[in-house]
Amino acid sequence: MRSKKAGLPPGTLPANGSETHRGVDIAIFDYDEKSVTEKTVRKIDECIKFRDSPTVTWLNVDGVHDASVVGKLGECFGVHPLVLEDIMTLGQRPKLEDFGEYVYIVLNMLRYSTATKEAKAEQVSFIVGNRFAITFQEEQQPGDVFEPVRERIKADKGLIRKMGADYLAYALMDIIVDNYFIVLENVGEQIELLEAQIVENPKHGVVREIQKLKHELIFLRKSVWPLREVLGGLERGDSRIFTQPTKVYIRDIYDHTIQIIDNIETSRDMLSGMLEIYLSSISNRLNEIMKVLTVITTIFIPLTFVAGIYGMNFRHMPELEWLWGYPAALAAMAAVAVAMLVYFRKKKWV
Amino acid sequence: MRSKKAGLPPGTLPANGSETHRGVDIAIFDYDEKSVTEKTVRKIDECIKFRDSPTVTWLNVDGVHDASVVGKLGECFGVHPLVLEDIMTLGQRPKLEDFGEYVYIVLNMLRYSTATKEAKAEQVSFIVGNRFAITFQEEQQPGDVFEPVRERIKADKGLIRKMGADYLAYALMDIIVDNYFIVLENVGEQIELLEAQIVENPKHGVVREIQKLKHELIFLRKSVWPLREVLGGLERGDSRIFTQPTKVYIRDIYDHTIQIIDNIETSRDMLSGMLEIYLSSISNRLNEIMKVLTVITTIFIPLTFVAGIYGMNFRHMPELEWLWGYPAALAAMAAVAVAMLVYFRKKKWV
Amino acid sequence: MRSKKAGLPPGTLPANGSETHRGVDIAIFDYDEKSVTEKTVRKIDECIKFRDSPTVTWLNVDGVHDASVVGKLGECFGVHPLVLEDIMTLGQRPKLEDFGEYVYIVLNMLRYSTATKEAKAEQVSFIVGNRFAITFQEEQQPGDVFEPVRERIKADKGLIRKMGADYLAYALMDIIVDNYFIVLENVGEQIELLEAQIVENPKHGVVREIQKLKHELIFLRKSVWPLREVLGGLERGDSRIFTQPTKVYIRDIYDHTIQIIDNIETSRDMLSGMLEIYLSSISNRLNEIMKVLTVITTIFIPLTFVAGIYGMNFRHMPELEWLWGYPAALAAMAAVAVAMLVYFRKKKWV
Amino acid sequence: MRSKKAGLPPGTLPANGSETHRGVDIAIFDYDEKSVTEKTVRKIDECIKFRDSPTVTWLNVDGVHDASVVGKLGECFGVHPLVLEDIMTLGQRPKLEDFGEYVYIVLNMLRYSTATKEAKAEQVSFIVGNRFAITFQEEQQPGDVFEPVRERIKADKGLIRKMGADYLAYALMDIIVDNYFIVLENVGEQIELLEAQIVENPKHGVVREIQKLKHELIFLRKSVWPLREVLGGLERGDSRIFTQPTKVYIRDIYDHTIQIIDNIETSRDMLSGMLEIYLSSISNRLNEIMKVLTVITTIFIPLTFVAGIYGMNFRHMPELEWLWGYPAALAAMAAVAVAMLVYFRKKKWV
Amino acid sequence: MRSKKAGLPPGTLPANGSETHRGVDIAIFDYDEKSVTEKTVRKIDECIKFRDSPTVTWLNVDGVHDASVVGKLGECFGVHPLVLEDIMTLGQRPKLEDFGEYVYIVLNMLRYSTATKEAKAEQVSFIVGNRFAITFQEEQQPGDVFEPVRERIKADKGLIRKMGADYLAYALMDIIVDNYFIVLENVGEQIELLEAQIVENPKHGVVREIQKLKHELIFLRKSVWPLREVLGGLERGDSRIFTQPTKVYIRDIYDHTIQIIDNIETSRDMLSGMLEIYLSSISNRLNEIMKVLTVITTIFIPLTFVAGIYGMNFRHMPELEWLWGYPAALAAMAAVAVAMLVYFRKKKWV
Repeated sequence: MRSKKAGLPPGTLPANGSETHRGVDIAIFDYDEKSVTEKTVRKIDECIKFRDSPTVTWLNVDGVHDASVVGKLGECFGVHPLVLEDIMTLGQRPKLEDFGEYVYIVLNMLRYSTATKEAKAEQVSFIVGNRFAITFQEEQQPGDVFEPVRERIKADKGLIRKMGADYLAYALMDIIVDNYFIVLENVGEQIELLEAQIVENPKHGVVREIQKLKHELIFLRKSVWPLREVLGGLERGDSRIFTQPTKVYIRDIYDHTIQIIDNIETSRDMLSGMLEIYLSSISNRLNEIMKVLTVITTIFIPLTFVAGIYGMNFRHMPELEWLWGYPAALAAMAAVAVAMLVYFRKKKWV
Repeated sequence: MRSKKAGLPPGTLPANGSETHRGVDIAIFDYDEKSVTEKTVRKIDECIKFRDSPTVTWLNVDGVHDASVVGKLGECFGVHPLVLEDIMTLGQRPKLEDFGEYVYIVLNMLRYSTATKEAKAEQVSFIVGNRFAITFQEEQQPGDVFEPVRERIKADKGLIRKMGADYLAYALMDIIVDNYFIVLENVGEQIELLEAQIVENPKHGVVREIQKLKHELIFLRKSVWPLREVLGGLERGDSRIFTQPTKVYIRDIYDHTIQIIDNIETSRDMLSGMLEIYLSSISNRLNEIMKVLTVITTIFIPLTFVAGIYGMNFRHMPELEWLWGYPAALAAMAAVAVAMLVYFRKKKWV
Repeated sequence: MRSKKAGLPPGTLPANGSETHRGVDIAIFDYDEKSVTEKTVRKIDECIKFRDSPTVTWLNVDGVHDASVVGKLGECFGVHPLVLEDIMTLGQRPKLEDFGEYVYIVLNMLRYSTATKEAKAEQVSFIVGNRFAITFQEEQQPGDVFEPVRERIKADKGLIRKMGADYLAYALMDIIVDNYFIVLENVGEQIELLEAQIVENPKHGVVREIQKLKHELIFLRKSVWPLREVLGGLERGDSRIFTQPTKVYIRDIYDHTIQIIDNIETSRDMLSGMLEIYLSSISNRLNEIMKVLTVITTIFIPLTFVAGIYGMNFRHMPELEWLWGYPAALAAMAAVAVAMLVYFRKKKWV
Repeated sequence: MRSKKAGLPPGTLPANGSETHRGVDIAIFDYDEKSVTEKTVRKIDECIKFRDSPTVTWLNVDGVHDASVVGKLGECFGVHPLVLEDIMTLGQRPKLEDFGEYVYIVLNMLRYSTATKEAKAEQVSFIVGNRFAITFQEEQQPGDVFEPVRERIKADKGLIRKMGADYLAYALMDIIVDNYFIVLENVGEQIELLEAQIVENPKHGVVREIQKLKHELIFLRKSVWPLREVLGGLERGDSRIFTQPTKVYIRDIYDHTIQIIDNIETSRDMLSGMLEIYLSSISNRLNEIMKVLTVITTIFIPLTFVAGIYGMNFRHMPELEWLWGYPAALAAMAAVAVAMLVYFRKKKWV
Repeated sequence: MRSKKAGLPPGTLPANGSETHRGVDIAIFDYDEKSVTEKTVRKIDECIKFRDSPTVTWLNVDGVHDASVVGKLGECFGVHPLVLEDIMTLGQRPKLEDFGEYVYIVLNMLRYSTATKEAKAEQVSFIVGNRFAITFQEEQQPGDVFEPVRERIKADKGLIRKMGADYLAYALMDIIVDNYFIVLENVGEQIELLEAQIVENPKHGVVREIQKLKHELIFLRKSVWPLREVLGGLERGDSRIFTQPTKVYIRDIYDHTIQIIDNIETSRDMLSGMLEIYLSSISNRLNEIMKVLTVITTIFIPLTFVAGIYGMNFRHMPELEWLWGYPAALAAMAAVAVAMLVYFRKKKWV
């Protein structure tokens, strides 16, 4: 909750009192073209020696609740206090800040779980320097979308071991954006399911489902739209950190974000269309119900009236005495009913 | 009311006749890195001596209705008459005007009261000079959102005592923007409550509630949207008052305003979605009501007709004389009813 | 009607044949810091001598239908024929044209009449030169919104007598924009009245009222939106006529126009919200009506059917002979009615 | 149909086989300040001698279906094949292409026929060179909106004979834009008629009428919107053909197009408003119908039930034997009816 | 599916395992002004000799699933791995990338089949170099929209044999855009059919049809909108590949894309209008149905009540004994019915 921070001096790292007993996991990859070192540490001091190595160092920090850890790391790598505050404050809008010596990037990582059929969002902050990259993940729990990058570093697949920390940052952002596609494809599948359901048997829950998917798309757009600016800024900017060879790859992710935005818009249009189909099908069904009511009522009400007439107890009602009175009355009723049916048939109601 | 001012020469300070008996409270903070002086005065003359001191001076004026007070202060600090007029005219759009010697900023302060569950808006004007900052608050009543800043000055927390008047202005604007988050979070909570209510038991009042929340969001956006321009202007501009170190902090609030605007848009989308859910649930209920009416009516109307037939008083109605006439009639009726029910079951109406 | 002008050479002043018998009123103010001369003339020749005086001259022309008057004046002050044509052609979009020697501005003057509760629009053209300003008002009838400016000139209030023709033009435009606020406030009041009415007793006329107010807002926006550009152009431009000291004041009106546009948008949002409230309240009332119909019908139709059964004339109907048949039938009916009521109560319809 | 051209080399002039027997009318005006020559020819060769004359030459070609004519003319005046293809291809979007030696402009001419109450669109292409202007009209039929310009040339009214080919092009475009006003005024009148009809007696046809007018406005906007860009480009551009004195006039038409766009937007808003009024009036009438049905039904159904009870044939029904039974039953019925009416009156349904 | 690629190193060509048994067809056109060679090969090595020839070489590759083919070709012509990955990844957004030595363009080819009445989309990638152009088509199946260009090359029609590879690329893009017109015209025809159907006999399927056409338009717009940027970039850019003479032609296609976008917007407006017509016609029909129900019910229910009264079995009902009782009752009923009809006639319901 933002509101808890109101009035604190800028750059104050939130204490998050009750939560500090939770530890923080720091995983280190230190590699160059020839070798790679992987290490998991729980103390900051161990990381510092990697700072000045000529190799590329990737520090991945799981859990941003511990002000002492974030603060120490920030101090060690010379990060501005406002950036540290942003890292620890959840709910950031994706943004890029270039401080010359390092670049600060924050974005949302989405991980789609096939089990729960839900996308889980986690805030990820990047501090990218000349020979190092630090990633801060919101939660301490293991599991992220970076596994394939770790594989590529260990197996020396692709260019990753040959390039610098900027390429590493690119690779991580690329995989985050790739996961947006997965979430989007899943939303697309749910839209198709809903569409089939609306055609077959529209129920009221459909509107809520549509709204739910709309909200997911809005959330996705809120993540991707500023990310597009971030990447566009990286590509066009003259950062000292991001080099020209990496910028070609940045343009590639940039194109992906535009494509995602396009697809989000299409999905929103489809959801709006489905709402229109649903609402018009409700109206149609009302019309159908009313037709049945009207047909039945207008046929039987006059008949019942006729029966009512000959049910009156007037002493002098000549028809009642006729031999053929009863059949005649029935015939008259049948005639009325048929006339009504013809009328409705002409109106295409039956 | 703007309309009362039509035709007055520009820079005319409104007399606000009947209200001049209300006093004006002026609170002075005068501080530098070493010391801090706090003082409450009721006369302008006392403030003037602080003007030329090398320390940072913060004059907080509660109540802008007294033309003589505002006028004297303006004269003393060399403020343009049009600015004084703007300070005294409520309903200003947030804006920034750079007069070289000083910067004039006006914005809305929102204070959410947990008691009344309502946000109260107050216009706040800033005159920020080289060594002084004057804040004008709309109302004389005590109570504002600046208290934490006063604490920080007194307790020498953070950078505030080390920086100039521009940083003070930043700190005050920061806390105002932080309070927007509080208001926004509250609106968010009300939206969630409404959402639950719509799902459980939609009532007509819901539409008015939705509109009310929409209006709050519109008001918030009207406050934040121009504020974003103000802050963007401060950050990019080359004001003599706002120095480079402070501009980093200004960018921080600037990011917050963008985030608030994003959240406002999301909340508006959610409110629109809720309206759609509500309207479609009304239609659904109409359909349900009509189904009940139709089912009952179409089952009983033919039955009643049959009963009507055998209630006729024709002398020659053979069925009436049959021994099994009555049970047969009842059986026929039951058959009709069952047939109808089967038909409705097929249509999924029952 | 524009259509009458199709095909005429550009710069042709419309003859407006049947109307030329109407006169034209020309009021002259000629002033400098020391003296002021006020004069009403009916002939152009009298004005010309003021043209070359070192004092500021304000010619106010009421009625633009007389091509000879406008033409002569234009010739005398060296105005481009296309400008003269624009002055005489009603329905102009507010615009600014800088001809170096003079600036041509056209805008709409709104005057709210408390008697008729309606805003009256009149086109006003400004020719602002170095030492003169000419204003052309659409209609010859007396009465405009400039009266307070005349007062200020005569009474030497404010800066007006100390400044040039550009400041005079500013003062006149300022008062025109102030009158937009009055119109807007009035629309706001009508919106509040409507809102109360919708809550209490929504009638169909409401939709038309909403549309009427919407049209007023659209008209206002059509007047203000281009005016904003005009004023922005004046402020940023490098006109020889509008001097730097006056530009500060122009920025003030510019801010007002932005504020008006903001308020118009808010009012439109509120009107849209009211339409939504109204439409959903119609739907709600339909639901309520249908509930009453359904409850009454579904309760009494089965009862009537039961009564119908025992109204049949079968010879062999054992129940009819029972001593307690009648009370039993009544009791059965009551049971059915109660069951129905319980069902409806459960559905929250009664 | 565009589709017929798919795959042809660019610059291929369509053969339009079956249509080539239709002739093409070429009207020539050749004028300078002193003299004017008017001529109608059917062969291209006759035109060529006017090409190099120092006088201004206006060739008006009626009918663009004949590739040989357009091709020859193009060759003679040195026009790019792609331009010739555009001239012959109907359905062009208004655009401006500056080829240095000449400017190519294409736009839509609208001619409102008071007889058919319909606007007829025709594509007009301009080739404007230094001393010549060629206009291509889509159809061979006589009748266009250029007649007043011809009059002005012949009668030497206004500046036209004194200025060059660029002014001629301006004059022709001006009159085309003036005709947009006529079409727009006509649409406005139809809107007013519709509005009156909706208030008095809304019928279903209204929705289709509204859509028809909307389509007319969309078509108009599709013509005017790019025209605005064309004129803006002409005014700001540095064409060798369009001279500074003419640009002042171009700005005049430019203003007109903005005004037309404004009016189109206003008309669209009004049409949307009318649709809302219509739809809410349908809902209202449904409510009214349902009220009548509900009132009548709920009053008589209980009464009928009471009558049904005393129509039962139970042997032991004490009320039937009472002397005052019948009047009492009637009185009870009346009481029920009155109670119902009071209830409905309270609900404001009757 | 994008999702399968998540985590792979950039530039990895997808293996598409099970599909590699499908061959790839490569068609070569090698031409200059004097001669043309056409050849179909299945091995890459055969193409390479054409690479360095001074003639223009067009390689058309049908099927992009085989990483070895695309990879070899890319290596041979020096194409960046990211481009090769884009070529093989379906669902690209149209884009242009200028690599100096060559330009990479990707867009969607639409082919409308008159048999199935459906448009088929296929992704086409262009690699345009100095003396060569390679086109990659998504599917291996024969049949594309390029046939007319092949004809023109073989028959030496138009400029194509005289110009370079950039003109060839233009010619191919031109024909792709021409096919957009065909698809758009077809959508237009379906809209007209739907419109007629809505007027004559609106059925529920109409809403789904409208949505289907909307989706087709959205897809088309998603293809054309970025294409516009691509072409605008080509025209304005300073590519080494696309020469000035070709840029004139590029501007021509650019204009076509704007025209297509215009038409798409118009079609969308028409579809929205049709939805409004459809929805209001549903409401109208409900009103009509309800009128019939209301008229019939409100006429007969009172009559039935009267009949019910005289069907009561009270012993003392004087009317029943009257000689004219029965005719009087019938007359009373007729009077009620007529009164009702008059009332409905006044309300214009019958």
